[in-house]
Amino acid sequence: MGWERRWWGWGDAEDPEMSEAARRRLGELFGDLEAWPRPVAFEAVSLPEARPLPAAITNSPLSSLLRFDQEARVRHAAGKSFPDLARMREGHFENAPDAVFEATSDEAVEELLRLCQQHSVAVVPFGGGTSVVGGVEALRGEHGAVISLDLVGMDGVEVDSQSLTARLGPGLSGPRAEAALAAAGFTLGHFPQSFEHATIGGFAATRSAGQASTGYGRFDELVTSLKMVTPSGRLSTLHTPHTAAGPSLRQLMLGSEGCFGVITSVEARIKPSPAARRYEAWFAESFEAGSELLRRLAQEGVAPDVIRLSDEEETAISLALAGDGGRLQTLLERYLKLRGVAGGCMIIAGWEGDSESVSRRYQLGSRALRRAGAVRLGRRGGEAWLKGRFAGPYLRDLLMDRGLMVETLETSHTWSGLAQLYGAVGEALDAAMRPYGGSPVVMCHISHVYADGASLYFTFACPADRDDPIAQWRKVKGAASEALVAAGGTITHHHAVGRDHLPWMEDEIGSLGIETLRAVKERLDPAGIMNPGKLVLAQPAPTTAGG
Amino acid sequence: MGWERRWWGWGDAEDPEMSEAARRRLGELFGDLEAWPRPVAFEAVSLPEARPLPAAITNSPLSSLLRFDQEARVRHAAGKSFPDLARMREGHFENAPDAVFEATSDEAVEELLRLCQQHSVAVVPFGGGTSVVGGVEALRGEHGAVISLDLVGMDGVEVDSQSLTARLGPGLSGPRAEAALAAAGFTLGHFPQSFEHATIGGFAATRSAGQASTGYGRFDELVTSLKMVTPSGRLSTLHTPHTAAGPSLRQLMLGSEGCFGVITSVEARIKPSPAARRYEAWFAESFEAGSELLRRLAQEGVAPDVIRLSDEEETAISLALAGDGGRLQTLLERYLKLRGVAGGCMIIAGWEGDSESVSRRYQLGSRALRRAGAVRLGRRGGEAWLKGRFAGPYLRDLLMDRGLMVETLETSHTWSGLAQLYGAVGEALDAAMRPYGGSPVVMCHISHVYADGASLYFTFACPADRDDPIAQWRKVKGAASEALVAAGGTITHHHAVGRDHLPWMEDEIGSLGIETLRAVKERLDPAGIMNPGKLVLAQPAPTTAGG
Repeated sequence: MGWERRWWGWGDAEDPEMSEAARRRLGELFGDLEAWPRPVAFEAVSLPEARPLPAAITNSPLSSLLRFDQEARVRHAAGKSFPDLARMREGHFENAPDAVFEATSDEAVEELLRLCQQHSVAVVPFGGGTSVVGGVEALRGEHGAVISLDLVGMDGVEVDSQSLTARLGPGLSGPRAEAALAAAGFTLGHFPQSFEHATIGGFAATRSAGQASTGYGRFDELVTSLKMVTPSGRLSTLHTPHTAAGPSLRQLMLGSEGCFGVITSVEARIKPSPAARRYEAWFAESFEAGSELLRRLAQEGVAPDVIRLSDEEETAISLALAGDGGRLQTLLERYLKLRGVAGGCMIIAGWEGDSESVSRRYQLGSRALRRAGAVRLGRRGGEAWLKGRFAGPYLRDLLMDRGLMVETLETSHTWSGLAQLYGAVGEALDAAMRPYGGSPVVMCHISHVYADGASLYFTFACPADRDDPIAQWRKVKGAASEALVAAGGTITHHHAVGRDHLPWMEDEIGSLGIETLRAVKERLDPAGIMNPGKLVLAQPAPTTAGG
Repeated sequence: MGWERRWWGWGDAEDPEMSEAARRRLGELFGDLEAWPRPVAFEAVSLPEARPLPAAITNSPLSSLLRFDQEARVRHAAGKSFPDLARMREGHFENAPDAVFEATSDEAVEELLRLCQQHSVAVVPFGGGTSVVGGVEALRGEHGAVISLDLVGMDGVEVDSQSLTARLGPGLSGPRAEAALAAAGFTLGHFPQSFEHATIGGFAATRSAGQASTGYGRFDELVTSLKMVTPSGRLSTLHTPHTAAGPSLRQLMLGSEGCFGVITSVEARIKPSPAARRYEAWFAESFEAGSELLRRLAQEGVAPDVIRLSDEEETAISLALAGDGGRLQTLLERYLKLRGVAGGCMIIAGWEGDSESVSRRYQLGSRALRRAGAVRLGRRGGEAWLKGRFAGPYLRDLLMDRGLMVETLETSHTWSGLAQLYGAVGEALDAAMRPYGGSPVVMCHISHVYADGASLYFTFACPADRDDPIAQWRKVKGAASEALVAAGGTITHHHAVGRDHLPWMEDEIGSLGIETLRAVKERLDPAGIMNPGKLVLAQPAPTTAGG
């Protein structure tokens, strides 16, 4: 594994640029905050001493796949949530793994799990390490040590061009999977914001949704079969397009977040590489009008492959940050004036496919957009979005440099419940951040649309409480989560549960739902070694009368 | 519950007609067989004596919902598989329930399960009783008695027209659900062959697929949330369009076939009632060419809402049985002659929706069909299919009258595995039926298409072995199932598992998969009272070292 990625933040080592307009806007919102220094040089980081692994593991043939060095341990110590980043900036690495195992095959994984189960060592599956919910933190639970199981070496690609499916290794990053598929003329079409670093196994284990998932399908819809190695043996599903043979084991492995076992192979639907792409910006009068418009597109079956609607706040800030000297904004204002409207909400609409399909579906979609009252701003806005589609997490590092707490959360609801959910979460975030000074930012966009509802993606920021940024984050996140579950939204539309959403799982699936998942965990992972402290907690089964 | 339905066969009491052509054709294939008499008059059927229910149940307030009469017990004694029908014709009712409970509410179901768990009484959820895999037979397992839990009284309908979803009671039959939705301007679009009698709860519990599911989506795709009452309490999922909060409990309840609990409410996607419908018959040169053609339609995203392809045998027999004096066949022969082709395979293609959408999608689909070499036969063939779409099971009763064993089975595979699966199953069926004389019929159609594969639906018939028709059936079904799993197909695409597919579940999901489902069952139904002997067998958990 190279050393190219920023170990304390997102992505590559080189800083992206922040526009002058963005700096100005931040000054207006928050005044001058104390800068938040980046961490000490990597070599100077001090880690807790590694607990020794049992000799049965270090003396086994697997030992050649184990790493104990500082680089490996730091790299696998955390994901990329705000608490992760804050801890790393402050130099806290209390949850670094004791070792990293670089998996090469199902057999190696199976043997490792066998030994770890036998000797009480926790195992944390690790792909791109991009979890924003604490999903890959190396917690050891009740066990004597913890190994981070790195899957990047499991990177096979096998294409079935007749069935339009591909068997993919769990360790393939988004770009590596796309490159291999592109060589055969195909694409997965899965582009979450974490695309550059996240992996196939992670997409499956967390039910990832990508920016184009409205068109291509969420990752859990793309997956046709899975293989998983668990401490109790192997689990796999048939590779057929559908089965009615009982409850879906595929859907039980999808979203299991490493708590049942390790996903070692993913079979997924692919599509021909798109010959044509058309991305545009449009405007709706308001978030309410825009939501209604997206609902109609989804329900009439004419939604583009990418369709996003920013609320007023996100639209204003995006335009201010666009860094094109305000040209987009000027263009917009001119348009809106013509229509006698102020403000407005940006829509990004993207079509991909063969050129006949793009042109046909563009015609349908753009006609529906126009008929529903949207104003076309043109391709420049769409192309700008496309260019910056993976930039968000880089920007977060820059905002943290300037002393801000900045985080995102996402949820979903039916169309009939969406407006109330939007209002409730926005208000809760605003109220929770007010005490920290400045003008807190709460912005939101609809990121995915369905016939029956949509997802809401919130970004929020305020001055960081440098005395205890994690307690601050917990307070704000907690307030939003409470508002969200009270409004009937899901605690997560595509970020998964990990450690951070655990407190709301009972609101999500009830206590019997939790018991049901625990029953599965106890059968597949009786010693509770798989990813302790996340999603499904291992607990002693309640004693029954007959037990 | 009325008494209008044939208790020993399918559907209404009145016999459908069999055309002269059909009679002739049967004579050619099988000669004169000994007629298989229909059973004695209902009043004369003798049932095994009912085991008494525990006093705690009969003395409870629930007792007013219990029925012990002969009509209720006979009606709930079996489903509609060939073995069920054969047993009933022979007057065997050894598995009639001891009582029938007519459920009215979640609370009543909850209380019943509580008492049954406490007093070791098995419970078999029962909707339309149309299972063709032994799914509703009232087996009592290890328990003292068995109650059939009839859900027909739970028939609420609540429409959310903004989100295009409806909350539906599990006891609604297809026509009752459609009538209630049609009154509000909507449709579920779910039309399995069992539509007239099967229920919403059954559709969900068995992962039903309907004839229009290629367009509207299978039932498991329509369901957005579920409520289930289990012996351990209530389980339900949030009503949001998607969640990434862990493994899918919705997908664990879907397909659970009454073995975990009772589905008491289903929230499902609906669509506006179609203003336009266009059904046509087309022809492909061969089954192979037709399959290839359907693959292209599915992969290009231009498949009609209904798309079916009959193989040569099914095409020939359908035309012979069409009962229109051979006009369809003449028309076809004229067409094929023009193209210099003999034989051919019938395609049924149907489009539904608003008239703009039907005309647009018809244009795309028919162009693709033509481009791929299909010949349009016109609307008459399509309308004829539409008219007779629910006739199959009625016909089966008539064929049994004439002394035939007749049954169906279905499977699915990826496009790359489909031809081999088709060949293997067809050969196995033919070889297994040969010993019974006549010319066994094995016919097949593709019933549903996906981008990655398709389903195969086989119908087969040969003279019944009147000495032991069930042993005969088991032999033929077993041979086909073995061939099917060896070719990598699923044991069922949409008929579910019940009792009949149980022997192949290990081929389907492996021993650890079975253990996983059993772990869920043990948590939700620790006393094993729910639908014993089907899908997931309750067994004592293996003793662990620490236990």
